[in-house]
Amino acid sequence: MDISLSLKEIELIVLPERRALGADLIEGSVPVVISGVAALDDAGPADLSFLGNRKYTPFVATTAASVVLLPLDYEATPKPRQVFLFVKDPSSALARICESVEKKLWPRPAPGTHPTAIIDPSAKLGANLHIGPYCVIEADADIGDNTVLEAFCHIGRGARVGRDNWFKPRVSVAEYCVTGDRVKLFIGAVIGGEGFGFETVDGAHRKIAQIGNVVLEDDVEVGANSTIDRARFATTRIGAGTKIDNLVQVGHNCRTGRHCILVSQSGMAGSTILEDYVMLAGQAGLAGHLRIGRGSQIAAQCGVMSDVPPGVVMMDSPALPLQTAKRLIILRRRLPELFKRVSALESRMDAAKSDGGNQDTAIKKE
Amino acid sequence: MDISLSLKEIELIVLPERRALGADLIEGSVPVVISGVAALDDAGPADLSFLGNRKYTPFVATTAASVVLLPLDYEATPKPRQVFLFVKDPSSALARICESVEKKLWPRPAPGTHPTAIIDPSAKLGANLHIGPYCVIEADADIGDNTVLEAFCHIGRGARVGRDNWFKPRVSVAEYCVTGDRVKLFIGAVIGGEGFGFETVDGAHRKIAQIGNVVLEDDVEVGANSTIDRARFATTRIGAGTKIDNLVQVGHNCRTGRHCILVSQSGMAGSTILEDYVMLAGQAGLAGHLRIGRGSQIAAQCGVMSDVPPGVVMMDSPALPLQTAKRLIILRRRLPELFKRVSALESRMDAAKSDGGNQDTAIKKE
Amino acid sequence: MDISLSLKEIELIVLPERRALGADLIEGSVPVVISGVAALDDAGPADLSFLGNRKYTPFVATTAASVVLLPLDYEATPKPRQVFLFVKDPSSALARICESVEKKLWPRPAPGTHPTAIIDPSAKLGANLHIGPYCVIEADADIGDNTVLEAFCHIGRGARVGRDNWFKPRVSVAEYCVTGDRVKLFIGAVIGGEGFGFETVDGAHRKIAQIGNVVLEDDVEVGANSTIDRARFATTRIGAGTKIDNLVQVGHNCRTGRHCILVSQSGMAGSTILEDYVMLAGQAGLAGHLRIGRGSQIAAQCGVMSDVPPGVVMMDSPALPLQTAKRLIILRRRLPELFKRVSALESRMDAAKSDGGNQDTAIKKE
Repeated sequence: MDISLSLKEIELIVLPERRALGADLIEGSVPVVISGVAALDDAGPADLSFLGNRKYTPFVATTAASVVLLPLDYEATPKPRQVFLFVKDPSSALARICESVEKKLWPRPAPGTHPTAIIDPSAKLGANLHIGPYCVIEADADIGDNTVLEAFCHIGRGARVGRDNWFKPRVSVAEYCVTGDRVKLFIGAVIGGEGFGFETVDGAHRKIAQIGNVVLEDDVEVGANSTIDRARFATTRIGAGTKIDNLVQVGHNCRTGRHCILVSQSGMAGSTILEDYVMLAGQAGLAGHLRIGRGSQIAAQCGVMSDVPPGVVMMDSPALPLQTAKRLIILRRRLPELFKRVSALESRMDAAKSDGGNQDTAIKKE
Repeated sequence: MDISLSLKEIELIVLPERRALGADLIEGSVPVVISGVAALDDAGPADLSFLGNRKYTPFVATTAASVVLLPLDYEATPKPRQVFLFVKDPSSALARICESVEKKLWPRPAPGTHPTAIIDPSAKLGANLHIGPYCVIEADADIGDNTVLEAFCHIGRGARVGRDNWFKPRVSVAEYCVTGDRVKLFIGAVIGGEGFGFETVDGAHRKIAQIGNVVLEDDVEVGANSTIDRARFATTRIGAGTKIDNLVQVGHNCRTGRHCILVSQSGMAGSTILEDYVMLAGQAGLAGHLRIGRGSQIAAQCGVMSDVPPGVVMMDSPALPLQTAKRLIILRRRLPELFKRVSALESRMDAAKSDGGNQDTAIKKE
Repeated sequence: MDISLSLKEIELIVLPERRALGADLIEGSVPVVISGVAALDDAGPADLSFLGNRKYTPFVATTAASVVLLPLDYEATPKPRQVFLFVKDPSSALARICESVEKKLWPRPAPGTHPTAIIDPSAKLGANLHIGPYCVIEADADIGDNTVLEAFCHIGRGARVGRDNWFKPRVSVAEYCVTGDRVKLFIGAVIGGEGFGFETVDGAHRKIAQIGNVVLEDDVEVGANSTIDRARFATTRIGAGTKIDNLVQVGHNCRTGRHCILVSQSGMAGSTILEDYVMLAGQAGLAGHLRIGRGSQIAAQCGVMSDVPPGVVMMDSPALPLQTAKRLIILRRRLPELFKRVSALESRMDAAKSDGGNQDTAIKKE
């Protein structure tokens, strides 16, 4: 892949980072067109690089990158055929460049419906939709303006998709589920699988009917192959601005607040509630019917079995507050020492006793 | 979504819960049609609610629900435009209503083959099949009567699907795999991926041929995006009535008994056997070549490294019997206290020794 | 499924294991055609079996298998209508048979493009491709010779697929991603999902543009429903010969060395690097920005929070070197005993003190 940016384009992109600065803030002669972005020590002559963290300063002198974003107060002269571009904040300037490249290389697909898309006549379609090849839109579905469905997307019966959504290929929004505006769903995401609930009758697991749906509020993202189950009744709800990574499981009747983060392979059992700004790190797991307080963070692989108050960091399985968990981790590593100390005490005690003629020999030693 | 139930319909549905009771067991005037089901404190005027657990009794007086299912011995009068429906068991009555709604809103798709389905001429198709858009059925596949394949399902070469199966969109049943009757597979489930087995030859991992299949017995369910690998040879077998949640992994040559439950994100490494009625909770993991005894339960995030006898609950990683694990969790939390007690003992011992003029100073303290 | 092998075919397949041995190394009369492979104690009369491990020797006398592979020095006589086939190494002979069966039952699909495949005119297609039904190949994609795409595969814009790849149904290789030669991708694998990176601006999580790609080098395999995210910039790289199981997550900017093994449900957070020959066991998790040294092994469910030197086995969460972890696991199980021993010491100390008239009663006991 080739990002194909000329120095002139890069200058324009980072202009807000350079505004009101003199033109002398570019040093060096114009090189070839830039074809990629790389870290200072990974970069080749076709790359742009940047000094985002001062600890990498030594690499500036040795980088092969043709264009380097540097902070204003950095003093150095580029090599021949190299350009130094001085900006207020190289990381922020880089982010602007990446956004510009993303818009160019991952453009929003143009409106239009591929002739292979199968759309039920009862479906209601907004304006400026992109509906890719082999999409299937079932009866009574309703899709808002400017939404993009890439190849193989499936919108179930009666589902309501908002405006400006972007679904990558192979996304499923099952029956009666609802998405807000600007929702992004990644490849293979499953919104509205059947909740997992059974009662055992005569030794067999009998499914409990699951008649709810899933609602993803505005600006939610759900990663590749993640699964969010529909509620037993009412709604499994993902709050506005919540971002969900790949391979995450959200059980039936869960609710997340606004702006939560669920990192890859984390999971929520049924009916658990996250308040706003909760963060689940990778592979964290929450039991069912819990409430996790606003702003709390659940560390990677943490297993939460009971409610968590707001603003707490939990780790370990079963979960403990961070400081307690860290202390126990350290003390646990000192168990060999502790066993030795107890043995030593026992020996000293025995020695003292035998000095004094005591016969207390029944106490078992290590 | 709108469940659209009139009070008359609800009365009919819960009739078995009311049979032989007087007509006076309905109190209140007929309200509007019900459009949803909700918990007492979440319900609005368009909802039906229920008192399933006595601890929610206070909410009955304040709920906005128009129809409330209540136990026979509950004494109260509905508000204007509210109906109380007295039944033997409100939870059970609710389950009946949900089942009725599910049948209405998630009806079994009608028989018929979508013109875009690609069916190899050698495939053998039963009666009354529903084959959705963009399904692909390969050579020599055999599909039993009354089975439903929703959009994008893929039935591999030589696969045999039983009667009354229901596959949601994007299900894969790979080559030579077999399903019994009444099997349900959810969106994105993969039955019959290639087993993961290698031998290392000259530093490279060389695949060991995997020539087995997967058999799902009658009444098995497999959740969204779960994966079950085909056997190295012979069969990876999921016993009758076993229910598997989303994002679960079952390795090659595993066997589960009848009526097991595998909760989301749990995983079984190759050749492990579950006897009947085993339960794996969320994110539990089993090493390979193990046997888990009948009725045993493996707690969430538990890691099992050796065989488990029947009827045991295991937790922790590596796994321990529940009572042992719980005791160790409690004692571990008391490690700070234990370290202090040992230090105190050492101080007392030192003090006693120095009282007695003893010179035992070599023993290291905390 | 039926592997349909005659004894004559089996003899030919295992010939390299028998070469230079006398014809008398087959004992018994020719039975029916073999239809399956099974363990000695599972086998029926239609099966072939083998003595791969001496501990199963007692089963040879009782097995119902019609053909049994046995080591040269094994002395026994087959039952009527049973054949013993003596070979240098029964496991190796079995592997040859399985490979032969796999080639027969899972043949590489013949070249040809299904008429329903949608291929952008700008895509560059090599020779001898198999492109299955309902595949979608986007603009500027490039696919090397002899590659197989089964049903529903999606090759994104500008992606480059190497020679002799084999993608099972429903594989996605997203925009600009690259695969080497002989890459195998299993059902539902997602190569090149968008990296998961945000900055929080005014309380909302704002996506950081992700403009990199994924490169899978030669001979990589990625299991069913696994997900590998594209880099923030530059490349998420999977080294040659690395094998990835089902439901594995690899975050943006990760790099694996050559010949690594990532077992099912393991996960790597962003920017972590595996050197060559690293093994992640099932459900293991690695934090971001780590380096795991060559040949190190991360045990099942292990949680790694810091760099790991080469050649080490780590277990536990947070991770510890194997020997340390094992010792702590054992000592932790002895905590009940340790608490008792400390209590006993306290009692003895108290007793000693009171004998001596000491009043040290302030120290708290268990």
